[in-house]
Amino acid sequence: MVIGKVVGTLVADQKDPKLIGLKLLLVRQLDLEAKETSTYVVAADSVGAGVGEVVLYATGSSARQTFFTENKPVDATIMAIVDTWEVAGQVRYLKDTPLAVGEW
Amino acid sequence: MVIGKVVGTLVADQKDPKLIGLKLLLVRQLDLEAKETSTYVVAADSVGAGVGEVVLYATGSSARQTFFTENKPVDATIMAIVDTWEVAGQVRYLKDTPLAVGEW
Amino acid sequence: MVIGKVVGTLVADQKDPKLIGLKLLLVRQLDLEAKETSTYVVAADSVGAGVGEVVLYATGSSARQTFFTENKPVDATIMAIVDTWEVAGQVRYLKDTPLAVGEW
Amino acid sequence: MVIGKVVGTLVADQKDPKLIGLKLLLVRQLDLEAKETSTYVVAADSVGAGVGEVVLYATGSSARQTFFTENKPVDATIMAIVDTWEVAGQVRYLKDTPLAVGEW
Amino acid sequence: MVIGKVVGTLVADQKDPKLIGLKLLLVRQLDLEAKETSTYVVAADSVGAGVGEVVLYATGSSARQTFFTENKPVDATIMAIVDTWEVAGQVRYLKDTPLAVGEW
Repeated sequence: MVIGKVVGTLVADQKDPKLIGLKLLLVRQLDLEAKETSTYVVAADSVGAGVGEVVLYATGSSARQTFFTENKPVDATIMAIVDTWEVAGQVRYLKDTPLAVGEW
Repeated sequence: MVIGKVVGTLVADQKDPKLIGLKLLLVRQLDLEAKETSTYVVAADSVGAGVGEVVLYATGSSARQTFFTENKPVDATIMAIVDTWEVAGQVRYLKDTPLAVGEW
Repeated sequence: MVIGKVVGTLVADQKDPKLIGLKLLLVRQLDLEAKETSTYVVAADSVGAGVGEVVLYATGSSARQTFFTENKPVDATIMAIVDTWEVAGQVRYLKDTPLAVGEW
Repeated sequence: MVIGKVVGTLVADQKDPKLIGLKLLLVRQLDLEAKETSTYVVAADSVGAGVGEVVLYATGSSARQTFFTENKPVDATIMAIVDTWEVAGQVRYLKDTPLAVGEW
Repeated sequence: MVIGKVVGTLVADQKDPKLIGLKLLLVRQLDLEAKETSTYVVAADSVGAGVGEVVLYATGSSARQTFFTENKPVDATIMAIVDTWEVAGQVRYLKDTPLAVGEW
């Protein structure tokens, strides 16, 4: 998995029947300093994430290993909402604090 | 999945028998600002997409999780036709409007 | 899948038993303007392709979804010989014409 | 697999039920000269690795082939703690020596 | 698959039980001109390859399709020892000749 930030939403009425009912979110990958990168995915959501939240997402066949995405044609799924992480003993991200993503 | 634009078509008469009957489309990946990138795939189509349309496509084993592509030797499949998406509360793409892809 | 050009052949006598009998070809990926890129794969062949031909190849687990490659340890397989493709209404490649790959 | 260094930890209380009980570690990929790269993964741990250790990790469906990660929605798993490696007959990394990662 | 050169060895005593008994080799990817690239993998070996040899390796789930690696948590496996290859009718690599890798 990698860390990402939910940056937006997407609407698609005409879609494969197996995608019906899945919430799709636009997620930009973050680096370990919590800065946004140019890499993004359109991910299914298994944890109730919302725009602005920092999440973990898995890609490839692993994205289909949840209750919501089993056998679904998705290749990226949000697996967790991140509370905090630290690198080399220093906090790089902490949810709901003034030290928001990209402002370190 | 990622967002792409159907930019063209491809013809191949001599092919693996399992590919017969699948429509193959040339799809360029778009970034979240709706600009075309240099990345492309030759994707199978599960939703009746046409040239010029903006779509979602899945890659890898997930591309085989539709009725049309099950057990087929394809590694990219168009899963949806995109109506609109927004990033940070701003619309970046809206189907059938003068604000076409790449013109924002 | 992506478009590639068969640029050469490879010989390997000492190999995994499951590879015996598979023809292996060197394939360079082409961009949508039919120019060769630096990306290449050593692909199994399911369609009788030869050096100089422009082909479609699939990668990952999808490469094992043909009669010839089922359960074989290959991660890239040539699935079709390309006749022509067009982008934005213009032909970018047409088999057996003076307008060969890379000369547009 | 590739070689990585465990550089940190991550906490996520709200997560897919199948992730509960899995330890998640931040791992930066190392090059063969033992220098950190910008590539990272959030990996599950099957061997009891800790921050600062140099490890091997697998990605994709292979990440689910351990006792701890079978059928779990993870796409990267630490498979081993590295003791030493050498390239061209020269040691590039040796655990528990003054010649630490990145100081060669 | 891609072409690689076995450049070294790695020792890891503490590892997932399923890795026990597998030989792990450091392999640098070669380009089609037989020059080493910065991309590398730690690959399992199914053919008895040694340091200095030029090999083919597969990645992803295909790496588990050999007798030695079935259900093992490996994502890269050496599948063959390369004797020779040619591009555009010219030999680019020939085993056991003075024209070694990288000296063309």
